[in-house]
Amino acid sequence: MTNSQQTLRSDLVETAHALADAAGRAILPHFRAAALAVEDKGAGGFDPVTAADRAAERAMRDLLAQRRPDDAILGEEFGAKAGGSGLTWVLDPIDGTRGFMAGTPTWGVLIAVGGAEGPEFGIIDQPYTQERFWGGLGEARWRGPHGGGALGTRATRDLSDAVLFTTFPEIGSADERAAFGRVAGRAKLVRYGMDCYAYALLAAGQIDLVIEAGLQAYDIHAPLAVVEAAGGIVTDWQGGPAREGGQVIAAANRDLHAQALALLAAE
Amino acid sequence: MTNSQQTLRSDLVETAHALADAAGRAILPHFRAAALAVEDKGAGGFDPVTAADRAAERAMRDLLAQRRPDDAILGEEFGAKAGGSGLTWVLDPIDGTRGFMAGTPTWGVLIAVGGAEGPEFGIIDQPYTQERFWGGLGEARWRGPHGGGALGTRATRDLSDAVLFTTFPEIGSADERAAFGRVAGRAKLVRYGMDCYAYALLAAGQIDLVIEAGLQAYDIHAPLAVVEAAGGIVTDWQGGPAREGGQVIAAANRDLHAQALALLAAE
Repeated sequence: MTNSQQTLRSDLVETAHALADAAGRAILPHFRAAALAVEDKGAGGFDPVTAADRAAERAMRDLLAQRRPDDAILGEEFGAKAGGSGLTWVLDPIDGTRGFMAGTPTWGVLIAVGGAEGPEFGIIDQPYTQERFWGGLGEARWRGPHGGGALGTRATRDLSDAVLFTTFPEIGSADERAAFGRVAGRAKLVRYGMDCYAYALLAAGQIDLVIEAGLQAYDIHAPLAVVEAAGGIVTDWQGGPAREGGQVIAAANRDLHAQALALLAAE
Repeated sequence: MTNSQQTLRSDLVETAHALADAAGRAILPHFRAAALAVEDKGAGGFDPVTAADRAAERAMRDLLAQRRPDDAILGEEFGAKAGGSGLTWVLDPIDGTRGFMAGTPTWGVLIAVGGAEGPEFGIIDQPYTQERFWGGLGEARWRGPHGGGALGTRATRDLSDAVLFTTFPEIGSADERAAFGRVAGRAKLVRYGMDCYAYALLAAGQIDLVIEAGLQAYDIHAPLAVVEAAGGIVTDWQGGPAREGGQVIAAANRDLHAQALALLAAE
């Protein structure tokens, strides 16, 4: 690696952590606040946006304007900004707005940066529990109030020993729920409703599989970078790239990924 | 209140907090540890017991033997101990062992104390996030890493504005799931899998309803004390006492309780 490549990598990693710090500062005053402003963004389903969501994305965009003005941005709240550097920051200020609204500490700030091939570095940050998980550009680490260390997915080889997470039954079509049910029926334990926190637990070697549908690109870029840096595998339900969102499966290792993919595809 | 009653109350409250401290110290070294010892307690369903569970209940029983030797104890792990004081401590060292196994910070230590009429004081403690919620004997408070304050349930009057939590779809019979579904279909938002943490959020005014089935007495004594001290109402699905467990509904106020109870009873 050349010196200029190393300088770029350091700048991206430092910028990503600074973004997470800024987002956490913007969000925490709103978490569990009585006057939480919730709007309904969509005409159909339940898609809350909070004042915290917008404040955090604004804080991150302001910081990028200072530190990385030539990079593109794709954010959940304020859309796409073009750039000339070939790098794009993908931001979801609060992944898990339903959990946020309910006061559970399992939402997260998602930050990723990469080129045309997808995310090269990502952060999953939980400001309330003060836990941060990051991976890519040669790193895969976490830190929290009780310590920190290296991330690494675990070696569970058989689905019958696996712990599986999902946002179902809330999200997905009937076919998608049926496909998920085929995998869930073989797993040791299924848990619900953790949003991005589930990918952090996968990267940290605590669980084995996350299966979701209906994701946006900004939902999956950061988890993808963190999980793959930790040794896991993240694809769509057909085994192709997951970076556009949609149907996503994240697995601790190739064996589990293959077993789950076969069940998702079965009729 | 006489001086001796006041002294007894202070001793019970101080003892309960000391039990929570001791349980947290016993549990945390095991949380997310690679060598987590999990046994399968039941012949049928999935009922994990961890080394942490047993260590925490032992620590609490040791402390009670020193501080309150004449009180009775009902604990999840080591059963019932008789006493002559008329008071019983009801202990669940780790409520939410499934969540604990999966690394989520939403399990809790449950501690309650009371007489024949049920719990008079309870604590819901989350050692990893360092949050504690307690209520009864004239108190209803919480504290955590970002502050603390008074607990109070919220004034949501209509089910269509309510946030509902449950451990379903994991627990319950087909009839119970159908009854739950009638309430869930009218609520604004449904979240899953939070175990005792949901009752803490209810007491803290973050959510409106918790509906569960298949509970044990030790699952509900502490939540019952905390939620009622915060202004909520906790009963079984027929509106009777909830202290034996089974089918339980906890509501932020009487209006919501009545609306949900009617839907649970409807065929």
